Parts: sequence; C-alpha cells; structure tokens
Amino acid sequence: MRIITGFHAIEEALKSAETEKNIAGLRISYSKPGPRVKKILASATALEIPTEEKGMTDLDKMVLPLPATARDHRGVILFMENADQAAPLRMEECVKELALKEKALVLILDSITDPHNVGAIIRSADQFGVDLVVLPEHRGATDFEVISRTSAGASSWVQIVLVPNLVRAVGQLKEAGFWVYGADAGGTPAQDIKTSEKTALIMGSEGTGMARLLREKCDTIVSIPTSGKLDSLNVSVAAGILLYEIRRK
Amino acid sequence: MRIITGFHAIEEALKSAETEKNIAGLRISYSKPGPRVKKILASATALEIPTEEKGMTDLDKMVLPLPATARDHRGVILFMENADQAAPLRMEECVKELALKEKALVLILDSITDPHNVGAIIRSADQFGVDLVVLPEHRGATDFEVISRTSAGASSWVQIVLVPNLVRAVGQLKEAGFWVYGADAGGTPAQDIKTSEKTALIMGSEGTGMARLLREKCDTIVSIPTSGKLDSLNVSVAAGILLYEIRRK
Repeated sequence: MRIITGFHAIEEALKSAETEKNIAGLRISYSKPGPRVKKILASATALEIPTEEKGMTDLDKMVLPLPATARDHRGVILFMENADQAAPLRMEECVKELALKEKALVLILDSITDPHNVGAIIRSADQFGVDLVVLPEHRGATDFEVISRTSAGASSWVQIVLVPNLVRAVGQLKEAGFWVYGADAGGTPAQDIKTSEKTALIMGSEGTGMARLLREKCDTIVSIPTSGKLDSLNVSVAAGILLYEIRRK
Repeated sequence: MRIITGFHAIEEALKSAETEKNIAGLRISYSKPGPRVKKILASATALEIPTEEKGMTDLDKMVLPLPATARDHRGVILFMENADQAAPLRMEECVKELALKEKALVLILDSITDPHNVGAIIRSADQFGVDLVVLPEHRGATDFEVISRTSAGASSWVQIVLVPNLVRAVGQLKEAGFWVYGADAGGTPAQDIKTSEKTALIMGSEGTGMARLLREKCDTIVSIPTSGKLDSLNVSVAAGILLYEIRRK
C-alpha cells in the first residue's frame, strides 16, 4: 500500500487516476476539511473513490510509517492499496549524494524530545542552508503536527532522514570526509572553531546532552560562551547560534 | 492587599507572622500541593490562617496584577489583606539604575505572542547577561506558566519591566546613552555591527515585525544573513543569535 500526503501530491495522483481510468484500491481519509481538501473530496467523489471522515489523531497515526517529511498530512491522506510505498530516504543514499557535493552541512539531533525545539531547529536548518537533518528513528519528538507548525512548514522540504542508529550514521559521515562537531559544555568556544568544507554538527537532548558513544565520535566539542545562573541555552537557540557561526565562516 | 508568591517568600512571611503574633488578614490559596506547599499549609493551619484549594487557572488569574517576575506562583499564593502591594518595577527606576553602570545590555520585546518564544528569550537573556528585559504591558504573551517553564525558571530572576508604551521606554533608554538596534530584514549584517557600552536590542513580533514607530526610534537596523525558502528565523533563535553576536564583540 502507498500512502500519499500533501495537497499537491494528492491532486496529481487523482488527476492521473482519472486519466488512466484506474481508481482500483484508492481511498481517502480526511479530517476538518478546509476549502482545498473539500475540492479534493469533490474530485474523489466524482471519480467514485470512497472518502471517510476521521479524527486528526487518527490521521496522525496513519502517517507514522512515512518518512518524517511526509507526515505533515494537513487533514487529508490518499491510500493506494495496489501500489507499494515509495521507500523512505536512507542514510546510505543521503551520504552518497552529499559526497558528490563540494560543501555540505549536516545537522544531527540526538533525542531532542520537545517538538517545539525540533520544529524551530528545522526552521533554522532551512534558513542556514543545512543539506540534511538526521533524526533517530526511535527516540526524540514524534508530534509531527507541532514540529511542522513550529518549523513554519520547513519540515516538508528540508531533507530529513530517520536512522536506527545515530552512532553508525555519524561514522558514515566521517568516512565521507565530514568533520564532526558536538555541542556540549567545556569545548572550544564557538567563535574560535574552524569549519571544513564538509561539516556535521550534533546537538544533544535537552536534559542529558549527547549520548556518550556519540560524544566519542566527535572531532571537536564546541561550546557557546555564556554567563548567567542557568547552565545552558534552549537547544533550538543553541543550534541556531552554532549554525549561524558555521555559516559566518 | 499584598499578594505574595514564591515558596521562600511565603515561608518567610509566615515566620514573621508567627514572631509578631499577627495573622490578621492573612489567607492562602493553593492548587495541587507538592511536599513544600504541604509544609506551608501545615504551618498556616498551625497559625490558624485560612487556606483554600483552587484550580491552577484560578491562581493564574489571581497573580495577574503582579509584575511578571512574581507571577510564577507554583501552586501557592499568600494574601495579606492589611498590607499594600509592593510597587512593581518602573522603567524610570530601571533606567536610573542602568545609567550608573559602565556597560549595560537591554532587550525589548515588541508584542511577541508565543509564550514559548518569550520564555526561551528570557532564558537566553540570563545566559548572555542581559541587564533588563522590557515587555509591553498590554500586548504579547500572557501565559506565565509556559513562559516560566520555557525560561527554565529564569523569568523569576531576570530583571523584567512591563511598560505601557514601548516607544517611550526606548526614548528613555536613548536619553540615558543607549545605542538602539532593531532586528529586521534589510539591515546591517549582524557580524558587521559595532556595539557600544550601552546597547539596547528590539525584537519585533513573530508575524508583523517591529511596530513602525518603534522602528523609527532605532539607531541601526540589524539583520541575520540567511538563505532558505522561509523569510525569517524563529524569533527566539534570532534573539539568541543577536545576543551572542553582541556579547562576542
């Protein structure tokens, strides 16, 4: 079964179903339809494709098998029973693609649990031209509605890959020539770092920082010099500052 | 009537009520008591001070007349019917105090409505040694529970002043020798700005940016160079980057 999200992608799929006169196995789930979803539903009804109203949470669950970038369903999902799901992005392919580039910037988020933070970081990734965001498959924030909203939509176009093992993913990046920075206390001050053509930056989780095995993979630990009573900045603010500093150089 | 919040402040007030044998007009409202509030309630009961359980939202409403820094009630409020409320911080006093300092950094938030953003910015203000945060009295975020939580508690010690008129407050800062930066598109790139001994930075609201009258008060418009599809960073990320850049110099 293939699951399709995104107004444009669904509209295109319905058009080609109409042209090819092939609606077998198509069905639509939707929730709280706005004007554009209503138009999609009208096309579906004209084609005799079944539609079913659901709760937003039900739709959120239906898109969980999809890669992060496709989970922003905006209230409508098209199911194609007779087609295979397009394979989600794989780290191997991403690394291969990045290896061909002269310069690349990769951001790795280690188990960041607050979806507001993940969303704000993806928004910054768009703004600072990050080529790839790497997220752990089984840990970290999963509320993709909040992530998408806080990212101001950037989560649907910033290249995101979910990996089963972050340590392995960082190893793959190092093999491809990436210099790996880890954000943590007690490292080189951000303004003093030298950046290479291929840079990866790891941000640790809000409470506990980077996992030990991941920390050991870093070429340089980088810190933002601060004073103040607290011992750290909000992780999305810290990520923004480090991306800004890397891009400034 | 005086309204007191903060575990320590309430404990101290109860102690002095006990010493002075004066409990006239005291009463306590509380919600979902944890161990420390339970101790406070036990002391109050021993002193025959009336206590009343309420909803968290009720407590939130009770503290609204307080200055922002005192609104983090954490589930318990002491009312002193026979005492006057300590006057909230006033801009005039703050400016007088800052004028005595050799260096000072002031952050002005123009109607930022998302309490997560205000909280994250106050946390950055702590980390980058901001001397004063100026908020508008009648606009901007009001959910102080979220602000306090997202600030990681910093909203209870970072100096915050609420003012009826931001344009007037900026005028007062300029008279006291502050150089005023306004964050907006199309200005001097952040890395090129020169900072003075006394710096004020204005961050505009998420959607519409700085109000026009406020923009006209700025000595320099400062921008963060970005690429990407979106036209702006999250406001708390932008504030963090600009504070970092000002502190770096």
